[in-house]
Amino acid sequence: MREVYQEQLGELAEELASMSTKVGTAMELATKALLEADLELAEQVIEEDAQIDEARARAEEHAFGLLALQAPVAGDLRTVISTIHTAEDLERMGDLALHVAKTARRRHPNAVLPADVQPYFAEMGRVAVKLAGRAGSVIQTQDVEAARGLEEDDDEMDDLHRHLFTVMMSPDWSHGVAAAVDVTLLGRFYERFADHAVSVARRVVFIVTGKMPNS
Amino acid sequence: MREVYQEQLGELAEELASMSTKVGTAMELATKALLEADLELAEQVIEEDAQIDEARARAEEHAFGLLALQAPVAGDLRTVISTIHTAEDLERMGDLALHVAKTARRRHPNAVLPADVQPYFAEMGRVAVKLAGRAGSVIQTQDVEAARGLEEDDDEMDDLHRHLFTVMMSPDWSHGVAAAVDVTLLGRFYERFADHAVSVARRVVFIVTGKMPNS
Repeated sequence: MREVYQEQLGELAEELASMSTKVGTAMELATKALLEADLELAEQVIEEDAQIDEARARAEEHAFGLLALQAPVAGDLRTVISTIHTAEDLERMGDLALHVAKTARRRHPNAVLPADVQPYFAEMGRVAVKLAGRAGSVIQTQDVEAARGLEEDDDEMDDLHRHLFTVMMSPDWSHGVAAAVDVTLLGRFYERFADHAVSVARRVVFIVTGKMPNS
Repeated sequence: MREVYQEQLGELAEELASMSTKVGTAMELATKALLEADLELAEQVIEEDAQIDEARARAEEHAFGLLALQAPVAGDLRTVISTIHTAEDLERMGDLALHVAKTARRRHPNAVLPADVQPYFAEMGRVAVKLAGRAGSVIQTQDVEAARGLEEDDDEMDDLHRHLFTVMMSPDWSHGVAAAVDVTLLGRFYERFADHAVSVARRVVFIVTGKMPNS
């Protein structure tokens, strides 16, 4: 029984790690679509989001199966419930990449971003993809130190996000309100993407140590 | 066994309904703080958010207890897992009210909102509070028709949200970029609050009918 449980749990971790890869790729392509006003790439991200939603539904089904057949208690129960939360976080990260892609599509053939904030989004995209990759690794390795490391990457995202506001508030901002509204929402999408990756990592810490790290 | 299960599930529904009341009140007070630049009220919402987080932790503990002791399967299992998701949605609604309150505090003693968008936020606040109240009712009554009704209130929120953008994009907008950034983020907080209320209602439909409504 225990062995079957461990095996199923391992498979579930694989599924979640594969979802992390998917959402990382979605954010990478969405960022590229945004920076290069690439409609085809934006469409691809939008179309492929359904796969992420399906992967989430499958992971949740498998977690349900585990709960129903193995009726785990205590720590095991927490672990399985955590996988359900993790699948939800990852689906949400996919949605946020989708929002970025939709913004790129909406403004096409125009670029969404004024040139002076493009480097910020290139960086935020890079950090987001890194966070998704690390979230996927810690799901598989259950490495608590690596999981804690995601908070630092998130600090990097928060710094970039703050700088973005400084740029928009500066008297040199010459792109008007419409561009500022887009930049504000896009910045929020990247920031939330990072928050959800951190949330995934925090749950790994919780599963391994039994304690939720302080936020 | 079955009777104990039903009783515990009923208690859990009460807890979630009470959380809905709490997040509705939080959004009501946060909106008032925002519209009237009322620092004391903003501080109150910020301070009381911890109670919502605790209520969520308690609800999740109770759901864990139910899973561990009753080991429900099939529909019952789905119902208990849904309560865990619902508690998460409600906590997030509390966070969004908190963000509104923090924005009011950050700009105090200045008003955050230019006069011409104040009526929109008064309305969005009203719709948000209504949605939280209805979410709480459907948790208790499991009334599928009422649950479906939340989608209409959410349409109202989306309309208000869209109008807000029209106001900001208009050539008459004379409040500059900084105000537009605040209005954009605040608008997003209200919109997401409504989305989470709808998500709560959709889970009620799922529990009762066994089918998730199409989004």
